[in-house]
Amino acid sequence: MMKFNSDGLIAAIAQQHDTGEVLMMAWMNKESIIETLEKQQVCYYSRSRQKLWRKGETSGQVQMLVEMRLDCDGDTLLLLVDQKGVACHTGRRNCFFHAYRHGEIVEVSKPLMDPNQLYHQ
Amino acid sequence: MMKFNSDGLIAAIAQQHDTGEVLMMAWMNKESIIETLEKQQVCYYSRSRQKLWRKGETSGQVQMLVEMRLDCDGDTLLLLVDQKGVACHTGRRNCFFHAYRHGEIVEVSKPLMDPNQLYHQ
Repeated sequence: MMKFNSDGLIAAIAQQHDTGEVLMMAWMNKESIIETLEKQQVCYYSRSRQKLWRKGETSGQVQMLVEMRLDCDGDTLLLLVDQKGVACHTGRRNCFFHAYRHGEIVEVSKPLMDPNQLYHQ
Repeated sequence: MMKFNSDGLIAAIAQQHDTGEVLMMAWMNKESIIETLEKQQVCYYSRSRQKLWRKGETSGQVQMLVEMRLDCDGDTLLLLVDQKGVACHTGRRNCFFHAYRHGEIVEVSKPLMDPNQLYHQ
């Protein structure tokens, strides 16, 4: 039912469960999905580091799983989560802070936390 | 700023602009992005058919673009849209109608339209 790509990965969208805010998109493999369901805390697979990425392990900005959903063709997950603090490594609540408006890219949100403090406490 | 994968594609999440409902995830190439911005109506790239996929061209269930956003690392788009009718080919409003609950997969929404009517009118 769940379809992984040729790298053994499936796309996962994280959405704040109560506000509907789309926080980020990342990838999961089987192992990270099993861990996420077991711990009810989101673990992705980092393509750049090629290992499990326990979201918030360093920064404390964890995502508690509320519900995992799967789309009609089985190749995308929607994670309804409760985001602690901020989702984005830039210190913003969500990662989608660039918008195309009138042919320009503009920033539509500001950091809520200092990114230096997220990773060097 | 926008990063395409080795197939020249970028992931695109469609979200209903006013309710926050995540409708679907699909892929875009440069050409489909340009067309989407020009027409303010969403055009994806179909990986299975290997051509532009003008969402709703056959079914009438089009997505009008409200705003295009880009994430922090430039490899995912968030399309804020106004979905006419239903997004999913099953006749459901959104594609994420399977949920994992207590170790089982359950359906959490019902079709609003008959899928046979969507494509064979």
